[in-house]
Amino acid sequence: MRSVFTTFAGKLQFFTMPEISIRGHEMPESPIRKLAPLAAAAKKRGTKVYHLNIGQPDLPTPREGLEALKNINRDILEYSPSQGYQSYREKLVGYYKKYNINVCADDIIITSGGSEAVLFAFLSCLNPGDEIIVPEPAYANYMAFAISAGAKIKTIATTIDEGFSLPKVEKFEELINERTKAILICNPNNPTGYLYTQKEMNQIRDLVKKYNLYLFSDEVYREFIYTGSPYISAMHLEGIEQNVVLIDSVSKRYSECGIRIGALITKNEEVRKTVMKFCQARLSPPLIGQLIAEASIEGTEQYSREVYDEYVERRKCLIDGVNRIDGCYTPVPMGAFYTVAQLPVDDTEKFCAWCLKDFCWKDEKTPADKIGETIMMAPASGFYSTPGMGHNQVRLAYVLNKKDIQRALFLLDKALETYKGLENND
Amino acid sequence: MRSVFTTFAGKLQFFTMPEISIRGHEMPESPIRKLAPLAAAAKKRGTKVYHLNIGQPDLPTPREGLEALKNINRDILEYSPSQGYQSYREKLVGYYKKYNINVCADDIIITSGGSEAVLFAFLSCLNPGDEIIVPEPAYANYMAFAISAGAKIKTIATTIDEGFSLPKVEKFEELINERTKAILICNPNNPTGYLYTQKEMNQIRDLVKKYNLYLFSDEVYREFIYTGSPYISAMHLEGIEQNVVLIDSVSKRYSECGIRIGALITKNEEVRKTVMKFCQARLSPPLIGQLIAEASIEGTEQYSREVYDEYVERRKCLIDGVNRIDGCYTPVPMGAFYTVAQLPVDDTEKFCAWCLKDFCWKDEKTPADKIGETIMMAPASGFYSTPGMGHNQVRLAYVLNKKDIQRALFLLDKALETYKGLENND
Repeated sequence: MRSVFTTFAGKLQFFTMPEISIRGHEMPESPIRKLAPLAAAAKKRGTKVYHLNIGQPDLPTPREGLEALKNINRDILEYSPSQGYQSYREKLVGYYKKYNINVCADDIIITSGGSEAVLFAFLSCLNPGDEIIVPEPAYANYMAFAISAGAKIKTIATTIDEGFSLPKVEKFEELINERTKAILICNPNNPTGYLYTQKEMNQIRDLVKKYNLYLFSDEVYREFIYTGSPYISAMHLEGIEQNVVLIDSVSKRYSECGIRIGALITKNEEVRKTVMKFCQARLSPPLIGQLIAEASIEGTEQYSREVYDEYVERRKCLIDGVNRIDGCYTPVPMGAFYTVAQLPVDDTEKFCAWCLKDFCWKDEKTPADKIGETIMMAPASGFYSTPGMGHNQVRLAYVLNKKDIQRALFLLDKALETYKGLENND
Repeated sequence: MRSVFTTFAGKLQFFTMPEISIRGHEMPESPIRKLAPLAAAAKKRGTKVYHLNIGQPDLPTPREGLEALKNINRDILEYSPSQGYQSYREKLVGYYKKYNINVCADDIIITSGGSEAVLFAFLSCLNPGDEIIVPEPAYANYMAFAISAGAKIKTIATTIDEGFSLPKVEKFEELINERTKAILICNPNNPTGYLYTQKEMNQIRDLVKKYNLYLFSDEVYREFIYTGSPYISAMHLEGIEQNVVLIDSVSKRYSECGIRIGALITKNEEVRKTVMKFCQARLSPPLIGQLIAEASIEGTEQYSREVYDEYVERRKCLIDGVNRIDGCYTPVPMGAFYTVAQLPVDDTEKFCAWCLKDFCWKDEKTPADKIGETIMMAPASGFYSTPGMGHNQVRLAYVLNKKDIQRALFLLDKALETYKGLENND
């Protein structure tokens, strides 16, 4: 024992500090947040930055939620149950019923944001080395949670030319092997805004059934569907009730990103029992967030309608505007509040960084207290795992008001013009 | 490809649903919470249950924190930065300074409870198969986070007879091999209440240095030290600044378990950068909790003094009371608000369950609206990884007022008497 150790210690003299983990190295930096230091620097210089990069809605939280916050009257801010409050879970049953999702309170586990629901689903259902098939482009943090759990994301490409619709069954079957344990979808989709059709959802159902897979379905944008097309939840699919794990969050639907309240919902009791062990380890989801989320369910129809109408307008404003810019193209997203757009540049990572570092537009519309204006976008490459994909695409979020979206698009046009001039002069 | 798959599908017909993960099976159920259904049933029958099992303080949150909650005046409950608010982290710098812990705001990452800090520390620093040495008995959820990260906890026994003091260096060295990456301590300790001496901390420092290990130090109970002995933080140890990762939480010090605000603090920039990638993936820590925690730092000396004095009294009440019961023994804990006590029974898991299922004391002091009274304790076996350890021990928390502690101890005495009678009649 001692001699083994001496050899080991002998090797150690080369290191001055302990190493970080391999998965720590593998973890991607957030594509949405990694330009943040450049944006901060631009703002420090006095530049106004229009954020088309983030999914933080600017619309208010429902009055009912804010009032619940004001009315909290407790002397001790104590733990809540690991599974979340019974009363909140019971209210959620009614909420889901409106979407024809029939669950009981025991099927629902409250999590710290949708993020924790994804992580706990992966930890509970997947072994290290197991594979999950995900249509790409995809929400970048799925990759991070997969790495955390030691699982592998295998992406199946969707393309801007086909409007990011679901690839054919054969494409999935090419990827399926003995390590494939799950399909993960986000519906309506972040970042593409795509909404899966009944036919596509049936196709997923058949694959899940045939190969006995889990179906992780992230449906946090169900409030934001603009086409009149039906919302088909994974929970609506018959015959795979034991396979479906629904991921949810109140962040987007109530503008409550900061309260960190999500949910993991499944009819599979064994999965629930396992997820609960992870939940017990982290003791409890946020107490105050649950009180706010519970009250927000009581929000008026009018609130939902106003928010919805606002996004309809913004969507039109953004999509029409992007497609009017020379060389830009985006399909019309059916849901969520994002779109993936193609820009006439070779490398949007460089272009987006350049917009923050080197571009600063000034005209008579620039606010008097600013030295100029620019835009921040999320380079789409961060939403693809396949190297080289999305290099000429960006994700644009329409969480700004129409006036700001219009101004941002004007700036995008000017930025592209300037950037092109620079390239030609190179 | 196709034929490979057919073989695979052939095997699949034996399963009717996808399997859960191996780590999901390995995850322990919380020893603190697994008796919960029995307690719920007892309460439903009308029995009053005295909780000596949980770490939820009954003392109020500081007024400053509750007022901050009342004064939140926001229309949008938006994401906070992944690292936590700058202003809160700056306030924490001042807080730590009082304990002679010199850090800057950038050294601090705000997490969703101390739990998330432990998980992210493990995910960032340890590879699957890596080993962490932990003195046992230990906080049970360390095991859960280690399983989540694929790491292995190797325990080094401390004993009730030696008052749970740190084992000799040789005992550590016997466990150290090429997979050993870290030592984890909780100081003051949950569940034993033990406080490591300067000599013991130096011993740990030398081990960490000699074998180039990480030192994860959970110090969430630093406010609760009763002996006048000095609090030696891992952050005080010289020469291992790059190895130390401090775990913290406001849950216990401010009675704010429900707001889910913790912190991970380290001088090691590479560890911080890695932890930040996990933080960015989960977007942000709770917004409202941070506002409350920040305000709570401004809490008065008087609050801290009153809370402290209350625990001093409770500790004396519990420890004296336990040691007066025939066959019971507990060393005097120097910190935290727990103690591990030895009971005159063979199997405390059975005894604790029996107290909830079959024991129900009634006398003239029993509240009129109750059919009787009993106690809930945490069997200590859940705090040990070594099979057979702690089978005659329980963890007792003194988070009840003195009157209730006295009554709970009276009930423990009566329960032991009754239980003994049953055994003899068997």
